[in-house]
Amino acid sequence: MRDHFKVDEWKVIEEGFDKNYNRVTESIMSLGNGHMGLRGNFAEEYSGDSLQGTYIAGVYYPDKTIVGWWKNGYPEYFAKIANAANFIGIDLKIDGIKVDLSKEQFSDFKRVLNMREAYLKRSFTLILDDNQVAISEIRFLNQKKKETAVVKYSVESLNKDVEIEIKPYLDGNVRNEDANYGDFFWKNIEQMNNKKISRLTMETKKSGFVVSTAMDWDININDYQLNKISSENYIADKISFKAEKNDKIVLNKYAAVCTNRDYKKDETPEKAAQKVNEAASAGYENLFAEHKEAWAVIWQESDIKIEGDPAAQQGIRFNIFHLNQTYTGHDPNLNIGPKGFTGEKYGGLTYWDTEAYCLPFYLATHSQEVARNLLLYRFRHLEKAKENADKLDLNGALYPMVTINGEECHNEWEITFEEIHRNGAIAHAIKDYVDYTGDREYIKDFGFAVLAEISRFWADRAHFNPRKNKYMILGVTGPNEYENNVNNNWYTNKIAAWTLKYTLENRDYLENNYPEEYKSWSDELNLTKDEFEHWQDMIDKMYYPYLEEFDIYAQQDSYLDKEQKTVKDLDQNDIPLHKNWSWDKILRSTYIKQADVLQGIYYFKDEFTKESTARHYDFYEARTVHESSLSPCIHSIIAAELDREDKAYELYLRTARLDLDNYNYDTDDGLHITSMAGTWMSIVKGFAGFEVKDDRPYFRPFLPEAWNSFAFKIVFRDRRIKVKIGKEKLIFILEAGEALIINVYEDDYKLTSSEKLVIEK
Amino acid sequence: MRDHFKVDEWKVIEEGFDKNYNRVTESIMSLGNGHMGLRGNFAEEYSGDSLQGTYIAGVYYPDKTIVGWWKNGYPEYFAKIANAANFIGIDLKIDGIKVDLSKEQFSDFKRVLNMREAYLKRSFTLILDDNQVAISEIRFLNQKKKETAVVKYSVESLNKDVEIEIKPYLDGNVRNEDANYGDFFWKNIEQMNNKKISRLTMETKKSGFVVSTAMDWDININDYQLNKISSENYIADKISFKAEKNDKIVLNKYAAVCTNRDYKKDETPEKAAQKVNEAASAGYENLFAEHKEAWAVIWQESDIKIEGDPAAQQGIRFNIFHLNQTYTGHDPNLNIGPKGFTGEKYGGLTYWDTEAYCLPFYLATHSQEVARNLLLYRFRHLEKAKENADKLDLNGALYPMVTINGEECHNEWEITFEEIHRNGAIAHAIKDYVDYTGDREYIKDFGFAVLAEISRFWADRAHFNPRKNKYMILGVTGPNEYENNVNNNWYTNKIAAWTLKYTLENRDYLENNYPEEYKSWSDELNLTKDEFEHWQDMIDKMYYPYLEEFDIYAQQDSYLDKEQKTVKDLDQNDIPLHKNWSWDKILRSTYIKQADVLQGIYYFKDEFTKESTARHYDFYEARTVHESSLSPCIHSIIAAELDREDKAYELYLRTARLDLDNYNYDTDDGLHITSMAGTWMSIVKGFAGFEVKDDRPYFRPFLPEAWNSFAFKIVFRDRRIKVKIGKEKLIFILEAGEALIINVYEDDYKLTSSEKLVIEK
Repeated sequence: MRDHFKVDEWKVIEEGFDKNYNRVTESIMSLGNGHMGLRGNFAEEYSGDSLQGTYIAGVYYPDKTIVGWWKNGYPEYFAKIANAANFIGIDLKIDGIKVDLSKEQFSDFKRVLNMREAYLKRSFTLILDDNQVAISEIRFLNQKKKETAVVKYSVESLNKDVEIEIKPYLDGNVRNEDANYGDFFWKNIEQMNNKKISRLTMETKKSGFVVSTAMDWDININDYQLNKISSENYIADKISFKAEKNDKIVLNKYAAVCTNRDYKKDETPEKAAQKVNEAASAGYENLFAEHKEAWAVIWQESDIKIEGDPAAQQGIRFNIFHLNQTYTGHDPNLNIGPKGFTGEKYGGLTYWDTEAYCLPFYLATHSQEVARNLLLYRFRHLEKAKENADKLDLNGALYPMVTINGEECHNEWEITFEEIHRNGAIAHAIKDYVDYTGDREYIKDFGFAVLAEISRFWADRAHFNPRKNKYMILGVTGPNEYENNVNNNWYTNKIAAWTLKYTLENRDYLENNYPEEYKSWSDELNLTKDEFEHWQDMIDKMYYPYLEEFDIYAQQDSYLDKEQKTVKDLDQNDIPLHKNWSWDKILRSTYIKQADVLQGIYYFKDEFTKESTARHYDFYEARTVHESSLSPCIHSIIAAELDREDKAYELYLRTARLDLDNYNYDTDDGLHITSMAGTWMSIVKGFAGFEVKDDRPYFRPFLPEAWNSFAFKIVFRDRRIKVKIGKEKLIFILEAGEALIINVYEDDYKLTSSEKLVIEK
Repeated sequence: MRDHFKVDEWKVIEEGFDKNYNRVTESIMSLGNGHMGLRGNFAEEYSGDSLQGTYIAGVYYPDKTIVGWWKNGYPEYFAKIANAANFIGIDLKIDGIKVDLSKEQFSDFKRVLNMREAYLKRSFTLILDDNQVAISEIRFLNQKKKETAVVKYSVESLNKDVEIEIKPYLDGNVRNEDANYGDFFWKNIEQMNNKKISRLTMETKKSGFVVSTAMDWDININDYQLNKISSENYIADKISFKAEKNDKIVLNKYAAVCTNRDYKKDETPEKAAQKVNEAASAGYENLFAEHKEAWAVIWQESDIKIEGDPAAQQGIRFNIFHLNQTYTGHDPNLNIGPKGFTGEKYGGLTYWDTEAYCLPFYLATHSQEVARNLLLYRFRHLEKAKENADKLDLNGALYPMVTINGEECHNEWEITFEEIHRNGAIAHAIKDYVDYTGDREYIKDFGFAVLAEISRFWADRAHFNPRKNKYMILGVTGPNEYENNVNNNWYTNKIAAWTLKYTLENRDYLENNYPEEYKSWSDELNLTKDEFEHWQDMIDKMYYPYLEEFDIYAQQDSYLDKEQKTVKDLDQNDIPLHKNWSWDKILRSTYIKQADVLQGIYYFKDEFTKESTARHYDFYEARTVHESSLSPCIHSIIAAELDREDKAYELYLRTARLDLDNYNYDTDDGLHITSMAGTWMSIVKGFAGFEVKDDRPYFRPFLPEAWNSFAFKIVFRDRRIKVKIGKEKLIFILEAGEALIINVYEDDYKLTSSEKLVIEK
């Protein structure tokens, strides 16, 4: 729904409350700080439609698999991030009337997500029979003290003296709406509520994650803090008092959420108590100040500034904001869930989205450690990936389609068993990282093992077809999930052969440069010369389906046997196909959900002439419906490479405000976090033509007509470069780090900190 | 498990009780009479492992679909035959001790299924501390009075006088073990228990089937009937009395089960009362006598007698027995469920098994009406079949994979949407029926509409490929379910083109012979000349994948791209593949679950030379693992045609005693009813080479070496022919009906009632 939120360059603003749109707004207004997150729910009671959601990074429940018909190889469970104890809750009564916006009258409702400073503010005026009461709430999840959350809740009676009852609480009685069998995921470990502390400690069933949530609070009237009552029977979380008209009542609620992911199980509750005490001592203002400071640093590195198009500005900042809320990169056991902390759908914590779409964003906007941790995540799951392959009776490592701990969670045979190209993206991410950072040590220390085991998988999964003297990979689903169980998906065959090649290159590199470490890996992995020869033979004889009459690669063997239709032939009422067509009709159609052959050209563009890229682009873009939010960005980048600027911009627009405008009518389920990186890519890799080759940044920028300029930062090997693309000139500024060579439109320039580089167009 | 049951030509005998094998034995010992059936459960309490099952034909519950991931086009529910009120229950206490064979000691346990007379007898001696008690039970479901069941329960104390408490009861608290969400399928309508009547009336939720079960009983000591107590508070179903040592206590329990499928809802309970009164008046002996008489007639028409091999004799009679228990053919709203009345697995009431495997049995062993009713079943579902097609955005009729009322129940896209060849089997069954019976009126009255709508489906589902100037059918699953989503499955393309051809032939026939009726159909179905031309074009230009180097048809376009392995290459430990291999590995292998190309050759054998058939057989048999019980019979018949007698016999053996020997370790779930017809086909169509061509029976028999002779009956156009194949001669006897010409080994003979035809070998 366009125009629900007001356009503002740094804020998302909801003026007036639309209860039918509340779930969408809750998703949009989610907060997260890498450690935890919550949807934009109200602090006070709301009995209308809402998805109450509080999520703690890495805390999951293994939800028993649900299928119609079991297939050998399916996983036993789907890991779901467990909806955790609600710590923002505050019950409020005014003269005995419980405040609940689904029941009471109100006016001047406003909910504002401040992206620059990462807080949520909400205000409204309650309309009672004989009075009006101004209520407002500010909350943030401290970006520096990850376990700390703060809610500032303000009440002011505008017309008369009132009796106020206010009750901050913790609520562990929460469920995941998408539980397969309605299971309650938690068991209660400890519930304390006395004058010293309010604390709730719960443990996920089966997976044994302990989450301890503690709260403290103070309440103030006109800046005068009420003493807590300290009798033995005092109930810490409820207080009633008289307030005079225009008294300013402010409740500061502090919460701390600690888990046994970070502490010993026994010590976790005590840690939560300690953290909440520290927070209460520091106080709202101090906590807020350090929070804002942390976000200023984030924006300094990752902001994109667009001039002349406030809606685009809001859109890209919204995406960058949520990416930074979801993953901060300091814990190699975490990853980028498809919904982040904004909803429950899909479960799991990572898809191939991380490597294929998110890694470039984190590489270019954060320190090297962050991208490295994303890679280490997979390294740590190598044994599990070998188990996944073994379940399919295959050698080597098969990284999962969806996982949280390395074990496969997904249970559709055509995806789980067949969408094996994901393995290639995980290998390619290693190359991306090494090329960008120059950190070849990573190969020696970790990357080579992952590459070798993935190569082993490909070697076993492909087979030699003596009739054609070629290696083939049958029965796969490519990135285009609108075809299943196809033979010789070009992208899959290509990335498989590429993996083998890159593995052998790195083998040679290690053997020559780190013979000792190479020997050690070789022994540990039990690598043999025969194996390397087999891999080389596969590289030499990999089969690539080709369409002679179009002079392009075929998406898969039988693609041209389909009834040839293009997007132009579609009735607009049939779009999106996945909602309007039977699965049977979709599968048999030529329509492509998501970049597939073009995904490969995006990875291996140097192997294609511009003419060849254009032929592939023209053929496949005409058939691609982009019903995955991960698709348009790739087409956009390729259109940019082909100097088709209008088309690049048009494709960028398709996801630029995907969630803000609820374009797919599913933002109520949560935000499309991983696709947010795609819009970033469209701008930085597409419009600015940024890439890293031969150890230096390359740029090939153009400015979309609708914009006056755009500017972004690149973190590259301990430097920070600011890039501004204007109508008449390009400006490059080295904001931090040592001088370096950059390449713009095929020319090299030396960029130094003393002088900005200005290139007239 | 071989040898669990004693071999006997007319009985299945369990001597001694194996509690771990009880579910299998319960399946084996099931009784049915077309209207209702029950597993071989004990009448008295048994608290050990058991699947209590009572099923009423056509009474189902629409069980909400369970899937991991929804696909557009899936059905909302899976129809499950509802486990209905248990009417055999009898609680027995001897001196206060409740008889329960999982708790008490016993000896001389024997359970005997008498197939000739269709009853179940069970006997054992209870061993108490100071006494032994002989207990026996006989039960049958009256074959003539379909709603009537009788249990005769006998007790004799062998060592001392005892206090006996006996309580016959009805129990409606029954569940389907395989309910998707644990739903209870029934609601209670009425529960009566007074001196006049014990009756339980229940209604299935959602589907609204009312089942009223009434019981009456008498109890006799040494043939002296005890009076029922008639006080107001008398509880009709419990009686206690003293019995002296060696008194012969006999309880005759009568039950009647009536449903609103046969009566008005309001009248159903009254009907049940009436039927049970009639039964009680007639008494055990009379009811049993008429039951045996009815079964004598069944055996007269459908028995196969094998001399020299009692195990084979028992096996084939077991199959014929259960086929006749499952479906009697008098109700065109019923069909042949895959488990009959012997279990709950799979749900639904019909698969394509009915047309492809069962129809020939019923055609050859029952009056024409029975096969006709099987066809009418599909005619009545034509509108539903059109809805099924429409759900996939296709024209015409798509008969369901699984159904009970015409609506599709199955929910795997690769089966539900893709295993469309089922439509062809339903068309071909019309040809089978017409060829066998000569009843071309059926085409005029019903068959043509079905053929035309199926043809319409094929016309929409296939598409013209201009590059190859051929029609193709993409994205199907053939009869071989170990490949999914393949292109141009030869069998599917073949039966599609054949359907079009047969429809056009019948169109011409109707137009020429019944112009008025033709006009009427043509108007009703809105058939056009363009449509007929399109169908003809499809027939002319259908694409059939061919393997030049083997000079045979390919199972599907890419079959030869697979790594070519044959059954000989398999490790025996990997068999059955569906238990030992991942689904991924199965799909990519060359291994074929079930006759696929050979299924087509079986249907269209006249189009193949013997040499060509042999080439196809050699290629595909080498790759077929026969992991469907419906597969070996087709290969056996083709082997017989190729005079490969040993192979034909070997393939026959694979399913001849499938359930009796629990060959697939799944008989605990119920019997493989539809595959039972396959063994019948192996003998009659394979060994005896029986078929109907040009309005006459053809035979081309051979005798398996292991046998001395085999004999069977054929019902053919109001005649009954007995055929006996001996070592030295073949004997044909016309037992009923007018003289006719039969063909044996390509020679015609006149068969008359006055003289048997003896052909020396």
